Amino acid sequence: MDLYIDREELGRGLARVQSVVERRSTQQVLSHVLLVAREGGLRVTATDTEVAFIGDLAANVSKPGQLAVDAANLFQVVRSLPDPTVQLVGAAGNRLEVRSGRAAFKLPGIAAEEYPPLPAFDVTGTAILAGAELRRLVEQTSFAVATDDVRYGLNGVHMEQVTTPDGARLRMVATDGHRLASAECAFDGTFAVSPRMLVPRKALTVLRKLLEGDESIEVAFGTGAIRLARPGQMFWFRLLDGEFPDYRAVVPAEGQHRVILDREAISAVLRRVAILVQDRARAVRFAFSEGELEVDVANADRGEIRETLPVELEGKPLTVGFNARYLGEVLGAVRGDRVSFELAHPLAPCLVKGLGDDRAFFIVMPMRLD
Amino acid sequence: MDLYIDREELGRGLARVQSVVERRSTQQVLSHVLLVAREGGLRVTATDTEVAFIGDLAANVSKPGQLAVDAANLFQVVRSLPDPTVQLVGAAGNRLEVRSGRAAFKLPGIAAEEYPPLPAFDVTGTAILAGAELRRLVEQTSFAVATDDVRYGLNGVHMEQVTTPDGARLRMVATDGHRLASAECAFDGTFAVSPRMLVPRKALTVLRKLLEGDESIEVAFGTGAIRLARPGQMFWFRLLDGEFPDYRAVVPAEGQHRVILDREAISAVLRRVAILVQDRARAVRFAFSEGELEVDVANADRGEIRETLPVELEGKPLTVGFNARYLGEVLGAVRGDRVSFELAHPLAPCLVKGLGDDRAFFIVMPMRLD
Repeated sequence: MDLYIDREELGRGLARVQSVVERRSTQQVLSHVLLVAREGGLRVTATDTEVAFIGDLAANVSKPGQLAVDAANLFQVVRSLPDPTVQLVGAAGNRLEVRSGRAAFKLPGIAAEEYPPLPAFDVTGTAILAGAELRRLVEQTSFAVATDDVRYGLNGVHMEQVTTPDGARLRMVATDGHRLASAECAFDGTFAVSPRMLVPRKALTVLRKLLEGDESIEVAFGTGAIRLARPGQMFWFRLLDGEFPDYRAVVPAEGQHRVILDREAISAVLRRVAILVQDRARAVRFAFSEGELEVDVANADRGEIRETLPVELEGKPLTVGFNARYLGEVLGAVRGDRVSFELAHPLAPCLVKGLGDDRAFFIVMPMRLD
Repeated sequence: MDLYIDREELGRGLARVQSVVERRSTQQVLSHVLLVAREGGLRVTATDTEVAFIGDLAANVSKPGQLAVDAANLFQVVRSLPDPTVQLVGAAGNRLEVRSGRAAFKLPGIAAEEYPPLPAFDVTGTAILAGAELRRLVEQTSFAVATDDVRYGLNGVHMEQVTTPDGARLRMVATDGHRLASAECAFDGTFAVSPRMLVPRKALTVLRKLLEGDESIEVAFGTGAIRLARPGQMFWFRLLDGEFPDYRAVVPAEGQHRVILDREAISAVLRRVAILVQDRARAVRFAFSEGELEVDVANADRGEIRETLPVELEGKPLTVGFNARYLGEVLGAVRGDRVSFELAHPLAPCLVKGLGDDRAFFIVMPMRLD
């Protein structure tokens, strides 16, 4: 290998692989990035075998070659280099020479042959999505994914195709049993329906980091895996093998009580409440009356709080208990300045939506007040 | 207690006490800030009994009173408040009511009588210093303080009065046996000389945070303690009871070899070296020759590096081993664009100074090269 590459181009490519490589694996090679220099550029590949990323970088290659080196180490080295141009040269003993200005590094590496090959991918359908829309779906749902739940199907975001008056939509849904988030967006092409389409937590984290910009993204559906591609970048992940619950059963049909609130105002109240409430099991009291919401917590670990907020109430007054953190996370995911809360009675699931926004909905389970 | 205060004024005052209070103490009261409302304003006091801070804040007090509340909790609450004006009211059961806009908090507190009184302070001398100069002394020396060394006298910064051609100076010196930092500044007034003037690590940390601005500071010397004051702020700390070594014995008299380097260039080289060298005991090779310095590390844990740098050498070429981290920290403390290294032979203490800057000097002990 012998090539010249722009330091910023290489730095950007290596930044993208940092969230994919697995530092704590017993397989040392999974903390490495595979560098493949060939005519036309440098390809960087990273994988933990569940998730993979491939990026193509512009480079002036005079001698093709390939080698895997520690991804974090190389990234730190590249960011520190003195000159805007970097030369990468393969050296004896699977080492990589990194030259820039008057600095020359030799980093230990692993032969490319030892790098795990990406599994074959049989495309059963392809859809085109706007990058910003896919990012919105991930942002609006991933907070509600369960963490290491024994109900394996809750540990990922469920994907499915739904039919709306405006046509077919991709919907992503997540729940941990305490709250639920659902968001959808338009797509072009064929959605390959499979009964179990669960996106694992790590893939969501990587997606949030990699989905910059508004370019469109091609989503290819394979057996047990999904591949996202846009020019110069490919992202692949294995789907989780769990059964997502029938979430439609908990979506409330119609609420007797409906409240309209200012999203920023209620979010600020919940941030203040969160300072005092450390105990997650504690219910915060929300008393909705004509024109006013009173939020209060008595005898929390670190003090008491009482605050009022103007609201619009349709239906009779009611008092409900909520987990402040769960409700706060939902309000962080809702879009729009005003939100609606809708529920049948104080212990029924509460439906939260951005006012006039039909692209997403959220459900928070109330808590019993002492 | 009943008073109105500007949210930002209160927030600034509470920010200052955060580094003073002791969260991990078995004495719960030491994590608290004492609030004393009296005619003319609100006084906040924090102490861990070794270090204390008193701040006077502008407030409109209608009813005097005093109370101690958890400092971190109150700070978080105040930062979250919706309205720019805050009302603080003492409530039954040693509780503090914090009201702002439509929000009302009640925070648990401790009676002011249980707050530890600050010890009596007998002033034996007073000096006036420029705030920015005192901050410089702390910044230029505190990095070299030892951490929990059995040689108790190394765990603080030594203060003394020195006589220079320009008159009396305050000098601060720190060393951990591997490197030494010394910096001095002018003062007006009387420096009360005491054989053991060791400023503990925590006082240095707090000083770095509190020494904003360029106002002058009054330093009062007491028995085993020092008090710094400027309008509206008082900072007190107990001196360490240890013996600082005779550091003058290690200050090299004259170097046979003298090198002039660009500070930023050599610092950048050392940052690159630090990426690869994780082992603190490893010596980095510095080969000084006519016009050029070659820095290299072979067989470090994470690779090799070799880099050259233009330098001006007076005297014969020589090769020295240095601990990259220690040298890097010294270069971070030196002021000026160009620095000089001066040493008698490859294993003699190396004197580092900013070129033309006589206000500070640093010593780094070389290491044996394998």
